[in-house]
Amino acid sequence: MLFTLPSSINASLKAILVVSDGLGDHPIPALSGKTPLQAARTPTLDKLAAEGATGLVHVISPGVPPGSDAGHVALLGYDPKNCYTGRGAFEALGAGISLQPSDIAFRGNFATVKAHGRELRVLDRRAGRHVPEGDKLAKLIDGLSLPNSPDIEVIVKRTAEHRCVVVLRGANLSRRISDTDTHGRSINVQQSIPLDSSEGAQRTASILNELTQEFHRILSTSRINTERRKAGLPEANIVLLRGAGTLPEFTSLKDLYGIRAACVAGGALYKGVARSAGMDILSVPGATAGYDTDAEAKAQAAAQTLGKHDFVFLHFKPTDSAAHDKNPQKKVEMIEKLDYLLSTLQAGIDRDKTFIAVTADHSTSSLSGKHTGDPVPLLINGPRVRKDKVTQFSESSCANGGLGHLIGKDLMPILMNYIGHTPKYGA
Amino acid sequence: MLFTLPSSINASLKAILVVSDGLGDHPIPALSGKTPLQAARTPTLDKLAAEGATGLVHVISPGVPPGSDAGHVALLGYDPKNCYTGRGAFEALGAGISLQPSDIAFRGNFATVKAHGRELRVLDRRAGRHVPEGDKLAKLIDGLSLPNSPDIEVIVKRTAEHRCVVVLRGANLSRRISDTDTHGRSINVQQSIPLDSSEGAQRTASILNELTQEFHRILSTSRINTERRKAGLPEANIVLLRGAGTLPEFTSLKDLYGIRAACVAGGALYKGVARSAGMDILSVPGATAGYDTDAEAKAQAAAQTLGKHDFVFLHFKPTDSAAHDKNPQKKVEMIEKLDYLLSTLQAGIDRDKTFIAVTADHSTSSLSGKHTGDPVPLLINGPRVRKDKVTQFSESSCANGGLGHLIGKDLMPILMNYIGHTPKYGA
Repeated sequence: MLFTLPSSINASLKAILVVSDGLGDHPIPALSGKTPLQAARTPTLDKLAAEGATGLVHVISPGVPPGSDAGHVALLGYDPKNCYTGRGAFEALGAGISLQPSDIAFRGNFATVKAHGRELRVLDRRAGRHVPEGDKLAKLIDGLSLPNSPDIEVIVKRTAEHRCVVVLRGANLSRRISDTDTHGRSINVQQSIPLDSSEGAQRTASILNELTQEFHRILSTSRINTERRKAGLPEANIVLLRGAGTLPEFTSLKDLYGIRAACVAGGALYKGVARSAGMDILSVPGATAGYDTDAEAKAQAAAQTLGKHDFVFLHFKPTDSAAHDKNPQKKVEMIEKLDYLLSTLQAGIDRDKTFIAVTADHSTSSLSGKHTGDPVPLLINGPRVRKDKVTQFSESSCANGGLGHLIGKDLMPILMNYIGHTPKYGA
Repeated sequence: MLFTLPSSINASLKAILVVSDGLGDHPIPALSGKTPLQAARTPTLDKLAAEGATGLVHVISPGVPPGSDAGHVALLGYDPKNCYTGRGAFEALGAGISLQPSDIAFRGNFATVKAHGRELRVLDRRAGRHVPEGDKLAKLIDGLSLPNSPDIEVIVKRTAEHRCVVVLRGANLSRRISDTDTHGRSINVQQSIPLDSSEGAQRTASILNELTQEFHRILSTSRINTERRKAGLPEANIVLLRGAGTLPEFTSLKDLYGIRAACVAGGALYKGVARSAGMDILSVPGATAGYDTDAEAKAQAAAQTLGKHDFVFLHFKPTDSAAHDKNPQKKVEMIEKLDYLLSTLQAGIDRDKTFIAVTADHSTSSLSGKHTGDPVPLLINGPRVRKDKVTQFSESSCANGGLGHLIGKDLMPILMNYIGHTPKYGA
């Protein structure tokens, strides 16, 4: 009965892409040589894999560790080698800033520095990580004027904890400059230097260095930091900048595939990439980028919005965070939370009309705490999928799956093909 | 003994590529969840797979549904993203027209229209499909003069049933124009519009619109249509045009691989792509693009021509037609006919010196009747093939084959490598 009216069924086929951040991993001695995904109890993921098709994904290209930004660019079907214009832009978009094409956007950290001769020595890159006054601090420096560059508008918006985004708005700016952030690798705040010989890069580096001095001047004399000092807390007396980016030029998913697409995510970066792709960003109470994220709320929001959208991208962050914390047991626990998310999601959808894909933006090693270039597992479950023989969702079992070994940017055309939305090539 | 003199043995190795159009499919409920290829009885295909190597082919790229034209361009080893210049050109070449580089070629349908105010309303896009007077009708409009574009030569040639090809010959023409065909999606004959801002596109669209009026003026007053009207048949009183194309610039297979290549096909499109690649087009009585095509005659012609050719491309259309008709049982029947074709072919060749490849230009869903982006199965059988463990020729079994998952344009270098004709890269 199901397939008697294919054209109208096509119109109602739906797809959900669940990205479990940093899901792939190494075999971990503390888990008896299993990866966290192998060690976790995952009845729903295993059933979805057993009833569907599986494979591996080289998100950027084989062996290349993806950054979270470029990884998501690829998973949403864009070629990161053509479309990637720096992380700061995605963070700014995800924070709700309407970027303009000539803006340069940065990720920022409130940090603790101390003057040491002419240098600023970094005492804590994160100002103790707990910075509840972040919104107020951001307001102190948002809109500041630069004496030597009065034509530049400075936009600062706090995102979470010690983090913020900073946007430079003005003419003739370039993202080809180095960070002021030390990345924990050096002692002093870095001078930004131009990374090419263009006038824009030289000008932007110079602006960034002036801006850094202004951040320090304004923040170090603020009442908030006087009080933090009194309370024995590290001062949040500077903003360190990294990841210069410009507005990416993505053709929207609507224009590429004729779909209405939505995003359910906690972190600004993921919302930013989704926004670049023209997706609607759902506001889901309880959906955070932390261990505490409300898996049930996310799953329900994703399932419900299928009434209005053809495609939902659901981001689940804590699997990555556990690996960055080198805590494989926590990663096992978070993978089991992901499994619960999937069981909730399944219960809320019409399984005869809905395709579910589960994969990751990269592997993160619970041993090194770093992103790696190992491919990530993929499952696709849905009504027209060619079932393979894989019955477990893991890095090694998916290596023999029927979907083969794919490149990240090919996943979206495959998913959109299932719902009848990938355009024909030729006639 | 066989491999002691590789150069002379290479000279006698041969390859046959059998393309079963639209062979891949979805799992079909009416076939107990099997694909037509899984449901069909295919002893020869299974034996060829069991004794050879198998894989899957993403003909264009993963997830992308190939048109039949672009699919064949890829299977003959050309990158459709660089080499595809519109379907009309292949149809014209396949119909035997010697296209010139500045020509614009179209597929045409004799159709039935009725004037409705200033519009021409389409009553039947195919004029009843049965148009035995097609050759005579084509002659009425072949060579017509356009009052406003007297420099343009108009060539019309009927191909089959209600179908024809139309070529515009003259200076400063462009294929970047829209179709006059309604594609069944609208009521009225479409005005052609330029698809870019070039002078050539504007001029060509304008010529096409004038030509359409002339087609209608000449055909609607013809004696043939008076007689069709009297007989209660729909008039063939216009030609609707689609798929504007220009002569593709292919390096010939001879120049690429140093081979003599031949084509056995029924449909004009496939002959046209083969002709673009510099292949000899064999004339095989009984070889049609229909269900009735003479499988035995095709197989024998292919086997026999190996005395004069190194490579034969054999096209088998009816598997696709059955899927377009949403008739999975018919597709099963046609796959069994394909199996018979292969058994005849095998009997006619020297199996110690001949490689047989079987694959498809795209999947066609017997559920939706449409091309899909799901990969197609591939088998290669021959004396030097690395045998894998796959024993059945199907979409899911070939997913685990030793040839892996390939991109369409890579198949020809692989086949030519088997017969020692893929040039070395480097020294």
